[in-house]
Amino acid sequence: MTEVAWRQRHLLDVNELTPPELDLVMRTADEMKEILGRPIPKVPTLRGTQVTILFYEASTRTRVSFEVAAKNLSADVVNIAASSSSVTKGESLVDTIRTIEALGADMLVMRHSRSGAPYLAADVFSGHVLNGGDGWHAHPTQALLDLYTLRARLPGHRVAGRKIVILGDILHSRVARSNIWTLTAAGADVWLCGPATLVRGFDAWAAAMPAERRLTVTTDLATALRGAHAVMALRLQQERMASGLLPSLREYAARYGLTADTLRLARADALVLHPGPMNEGVEIAPDIADFERSVVTEQVANGVAVRMALLYLLAGSGPIEEGGTRG
Amino acid sequence: MTEVAWRQRHLLDVNELTPPELDLVMRTADEMKEILGRPIPKVPTLRGTQVTILFYEASTRTRVSFEVAAKNLSADVVNIAASSSSVTKGESLVDTIRTIEALGADMLVMRHSRSGAPYLAADVFSGHVLNGGDGWHAHPTQALLDLYTLRARLPGHRVAGRKIVILGDILHSRVARSNIWTLTAAGADVWLCGPATLVRGFDAWAAAMPAERRLTVTTDLATALRGAHAVMALRLQQERMASGLLPSLREYAARYGLTADTLRLARADALVLHPGPMNEGVEIAPDIADFERSVVTEQVANGVAVRMALLYLLAGSGPIEEGGTRG
Amino acid sequence: MTEVAWRQRHLLDVNELTPPELDLVMRTADEMKEILGRPIPKVPTLRGTQVTILFYEASTRTRVSFEVAAKNLSADVVNIAASSSSVTKGESLVDTIRTIEALGADMLVMRHSRSGAPYLAADVFSGHVLNGGDGWHAHPTQALLDLYTLRARLPGHRVAGRKIVILGDILHSRVARSNIWTLTAAGADVWLCGPATLVRGFDAWAAAMPAERRLTVTTDLATALRGAHAVMALRLQQERMASGLLPSLREYAARYGLTADTLRLARADALVLHPGPMNEGVEIAPDIADFERSVVTEQVANGVAVRMALLYLLAGSGPIEEGGTRG
Repeated sequence: MTEVAWRQRHLLDVNELTPPELDLVMRTADEMKEILGRPIPKVPTLRGTQVTILFYEASTRTRVSFEVAAKNLSADVVNIAASSSSVTKGESLVDTIRTIEALGADMLVMRHSRSGAPYLAADVFSGHVLNGGDGWHAHPTQALLDLYTLRARLPGHRVAGRKIVILGDILHSRVARSNIWTLTAAGADVWLCGPATLVRGFDAWAAAMPAERRLTVTTDLATALRGAHAVMALRLQQERMASGLLPSLREYAARYGLTADTLRLARADALVLHPGPMNEGVEIAPDIADFERSVVTEQVANGVAVRMALLYLLAGSGPIEEGGTRG
Repeated sequence: MTEVAWRQRHLLDVNELTPPELDLVMRTADEMKEILGRPIPKVPTLRGTQVTILFYEASTRTRVSFEVAAKNLSADVVNIAASSSSVTKGESLVDTIRTIEALGADMLVMRHSRSGAPYLAADVFSGHVLNGGDGWHAHPTQALLDLYTLRARLPGHRVAGRKIVILGDILHSRVARSNIWTLTAAGADVWLCGPATLVRGFDAWAAAMPAERRLTVTTDLATALRGAHAVMALRLQQERMASGLLPSLREYAARYGLTADTLRLARADALVLHPGPMNEGVEIAPDIADFERSVVTEQVANGVAVRMALLYLLAGSGPIEEGGTRG
Repeated sequence: MTEVAWRQRHLLDVNELTPPELDLVMRTADEMKEILGRPIPKVPTLRGTQVTILFYEASTRTRVSFEVAAKNLSADVVNIAASSSSVTKGESLVDTIRTIEALGADMLVMRHSRSGAPYLAADVFSGHVLNGGDGWHAHPTQALLDLYTLRARLPGHRVAGRKIVILGDILHSRVARSNIWTLTAAGADVWLCGPATLVRGFDAWAAAMPAERRLTVTTDLATALRGAHAVMALRLQQERMASGLLPSLREYAARYGLTADTLRLARADALVLHPGPMNEGVEIAPDIADFERSVVTEQVANGVAVRMALLYLLAGSGPIEEGGTRG
């Protein structure tokens, strides 16, 4: 495993990862999955490392996933939720990051509503920054766990050449942006589908892509789903209604909701993904959320393994089973 | 201790426990109390087990009690408070439970404002569910710690035949409902007392009880307290005023508040219990809350031992002092 | 190190500490700093000790600092934030403290908006209480980390005889009150400076000081800064505007804000301290907050070492590197 050099100090976005690095994340996650299957799913790898989880937006799954990943590697975890922190007292982000470092943090997992905030943090913080989602910009660990899940479940473990549809509110989605990068890098034929107001501007992105990357934008659900190997439905933020971008949830569900009916257009073995939390009955029908080819809970489980892999690789420690030096 | 089979996978309510199982909980709690008295009150029993504490209602004592109990058994604890979770984003309870399981939870402690919610969780979750209180329905760990406290403190360690009064807002109390079951099962002579609006319907329950169980309902405090061995005052929720069930806190305190005066009607050695948090000056006078026969803080301390016992029994691990296999 | 007797059971305010005890805190913090510099900054000293952190006011830096300090000593930490606790259900502070003790707490770190609350807690709690800030009254660990930082950074490691300015809203500041005590005790020449409305009453305190303690009050920034060895700017609470004590933030910043310009009045090697979180552009200019003689992040880092020292000394355990008996 050590034949590929890992050169990243931070994980800010997926587009910084070289193809061999992407591959290394996947293979390290395989090792972590093996550890997760043990009676005691813990290794001493990051003993003495302090991982601070600083979330400026509410989250359960991502926050807990990082917490469990860090604890499985024997790191010490400090949780800071912005609403209860001095952030609300008007302190600048730079001062907050310096304070967290002075309190002993070696690694910083950060979610922020402003795109780019983790880049600012990385400029200041002398340890390792992991972006847990920033504004509409990026959600790199989500894209990596999605890639891991697709590799595990697509026929022949192949992503290249597969038609993968990202469905819904592309415009406001950091999950979509990071997935577009990793999936086109992996050679997938990526389709974006949603109402015109919510795919706005992505045509230009598609046109500007390098020739070897395949990205298509459509507002027609049938066109998108036809022959798809996998469909990733995005969460529809209820706030979009207020801003006039969508007429009503009901109309959205009728035109773009993933249902047993609409999914018939895809391949018979098409997978369904969702980053969660799901609005069942809106972007995804309850019977689809539950059905056998939905890999939603696998995504969550793989998320722990992928985050363990990333914490391990970024910390640059020794062998997984030994550990005990700070990153 | 292993001669009695423990057959429960979940702890949803006390009425699922057989008398030998109830007895096993009590004896296991005795062992846990011994551990709590050690300089380092920790055993490796649940090492590698992830206990997720998912509370949809605010709580300090129950939440921390479970957390301390789990940590004393060397489990890993994940805390999720509903207000800061994606629950508020409209995700269904079933999806939340699946997510928590995929994040690695082996045991789930859950408090929910809807009666029955933990039963739904138990249908979905493949580990062990412990009900930390659901709506008006049940609070099994509270009833078990109350039973443990009464056995420890009543003369001759006997609950059978003792007159035990549950006083206050019976109607809205999950604590009362679970205690009625365990105390009548233990052979106590249980009296419910409160204003007519707050004991409504319990006459019918009393009438429907099996002949060997003794349950009496009264609105007269003197009748209830006369000759009582123990009085459990319930917290009066201030919200009851708004709903018109009570004229005023002052009137309630005057007629049903437990004071030095009213307590003289009970036996001279009568114990006072309260599940906490207490509204001193409302359902209980400050001098009673503090007096020598109040066992309120013993209830809290015993709660940790009883919850350690329940986590241990449900996980079905090996001997207490060894541990280390996941439940 | 054991030649000096440590006789405190609680840390409620700095004025209870004898000069040899103050010195012992400083020297123990030195040992803790050495531990913090190790690859794995952990010692088993407080294994089996439960430290409960009960904060009735929002805080990141102090809360996390205590949490990290306790975990570095291998204590178990229970966090209780008042907003999510049953405190909001009207329970009395005394009952809350008894409950926390019954839940197993050996040490209690407490922040409360009411001056004196930790004294009440210390009356009830049979373990050790550490005041994490109470109202306007005291913030002893902040004053001790400030003293530690000044000793480390002032020329010759000498505080005695140095001119140290505390600048800003003295009136409402527990940080100021605790620092006045420790700094005058250490022989510093302490100056308080701020608008007349925010230094009100401190003249009388200065006049009542023992002759060997030096405390001067002024409303003139130039007088205060001239020849100063260190300036500690206090956070200006925005709420002070509403109460009419200050005309505007802008005016405050113009007259009392610490800037490159005003700092020229102090010695060329004058240090800048701030307890954080900083309102940059109000009480301190951004270029000052960042500049080379600012020791703000050192204060934070030293805070962990000083709190480790205090937890260790209060617990009265054996040698630092061994540990494992409860305090």
